Amino acid sequence: MNIVLLGSGNVATHLGRAFKMAGQTIVQVWSRDVEHARELADTLASEAISDMDDINRTADLYIIAVKDNAIRELALTLNIGDKLIVHTSGSTSLQALDGVSGHTGVFYPLQTFSKNKAVDFRQVPIAIEANNPEDLAAIRAIADRISERVTELNSAQRKALHVAAVFACNFTNHLISISQQLLEDENLDFDLLRPLIAETASKVQLYDPATVQTGPAVREDNEIINSHLEMLRDQPELQDLYRKLSQSIVNLHKQTRG
Amino acid sequence: MNIVLLGSGNVATHLGRAFKMAGQTIVQVWSRDVEHARELADTLASEAISDMDDINRTADLYIIAVKDNAIRELALTLNIGDKLIVHTSGSTSLQALDGVSGHTGVFYPLQTFSKNKAVDFRQVPIAIEANNPEDLAAIRAIADRISERVTELNSAQRKALHVAAVFACNFTNHLISISQQLLEDENLDFDLLRPLIAETASKVQLYDPATVQTGPAVREDNEIINSHLEMLRDQPELQDLYRKLSQSIVNLHKQTRG
Repeated sequence: MNIVLLGSGNVATHLGRAFKMAGQTIVQVWSRDVEHARELADTLASEAISDMDDINRTADLYIIAVKDNAIRELALTLNIGDKLIVHTSGSTSLQALDGVSGHTGVFYPLQTFSKNKAVDFRQVPIAIEANNPEDLAAIRAIADRISERVTELNSAQRKALHVAAVFACNFTNHLISISQQLLEDENLDFDLLRPLIAETASKVQLYDPATVQTGPAVREDNEIINSHLEMLRDQPELQDLYRKLSQSIVNLHKQTRG
Repeated sequence: MNIVLLGSGNVATHLGRAFKMAGQTIVQVWSRDVEHARELADTLASEAISDMDDINRTADLYIIAVKDNAIRELALTLNIGDKLIVHTSGSTSLQALDGVSGHTGVFYPLQTFSKNKAVDFRQVPIAIEANNPEDLAAIRAIADRISERVTELNSAQRKALHVAAVFACNFTNHLISISQQLLEDENLDFDLLRPLIAETASKVQLYDPATVQTGPAVREDNEIINSHLEMLRDQPELQDLYRKLSQSIVNLHKQTRG
């Protein structure tokens, strides 16, 4: 299968690698900045382009993996006839590709991608969507080549999944950044926290997260909570987050117990 | 070595198991509720007690693993002479044991313990503290028997570590609970998020969390952020957390770039 990849960011990079490892051909990588296109294209034995006029019009699949707010504009500049085109966004509806081709779809890989960290793509859930069963079947066949976890979601479900992923990944990673800063303030090594972070994620592979909640908030140990808030008195933003998150834990577990 | 364990919660349970697996003897488990004491004591081939008068006065080590606000009161009822006594709290100072014995210390295992989830204690960091080098050496020798990651911290450092752990573990687990709820609202399976959660934790084993931050906030993709806030309009608590955490991500990364 011949694929044109539009975009050169984290998602484009990891998708390109996954398809290449699965024996597919990335014929071109497009990016507004040809240097960015080349950097990725070189690792995929692919051609780098930045001019839309140079696009290969005979590929089997066109993957738009750019920032959400650039998807529609870019799609409308594509001039490739009735080819199969997908975007990779969690929060953009399928309709963003309306009028671009008769065969459009969504191909949303749910994972946190950083360029220099390899990922086992076979385990990455891919949420797919299309306007008709034929296109959906075609997209599913493509997704099956790189992942064991392909699932059909409509645009509303995919968006809910994306919001959930922001909480479960982006926000948790940020809280971990905060924890590293708190350690650095006391000249403590972040390695002290790494086993705890690994175990926190390991637990929820087996259990529902609410059932393994630990810490002062779920115990409603206000003495500890207040002493922690006092410790954070010079960092009002962190103090506010600590207070809000503790209250949210109390609220959730009152509900559950109630 | 003979150990008396005061407490029967998650920390007492996991410490008891770790010492038993390391070939030590838990001679007694004390709990205010003798049934709770018995439940743990039975798994440790130990005696269950709830009356402080029954305490074995010849053990080598007394471990107080109860709620922070009960530590001092419980310690003051101990009548065991000049024996080595430690508490296991992250946020309670060593001074909470003043006047209880000439040999006091802290033995804080940094991990999230749930009773029915096994933990590799060899990898659990243990923060230790004592009033003098001899007691510290004795506590270190004990801690070395169950963990490879024993480290001396003073009370202020240990408290900072505990606050950091609340962010890195308790708060992250709660955000994961929220993500599960968001999926359930759309009848989506939590399994969709599990690979993402595993990868989020896996990344920070190798990298600093701030360097692998992903998502709409770090990209300052306000279109997505606003569409997510709109999706959460009926859940003001979640909307507020989403807004605050996104702003905190923007602030941190402005600082870093700035």
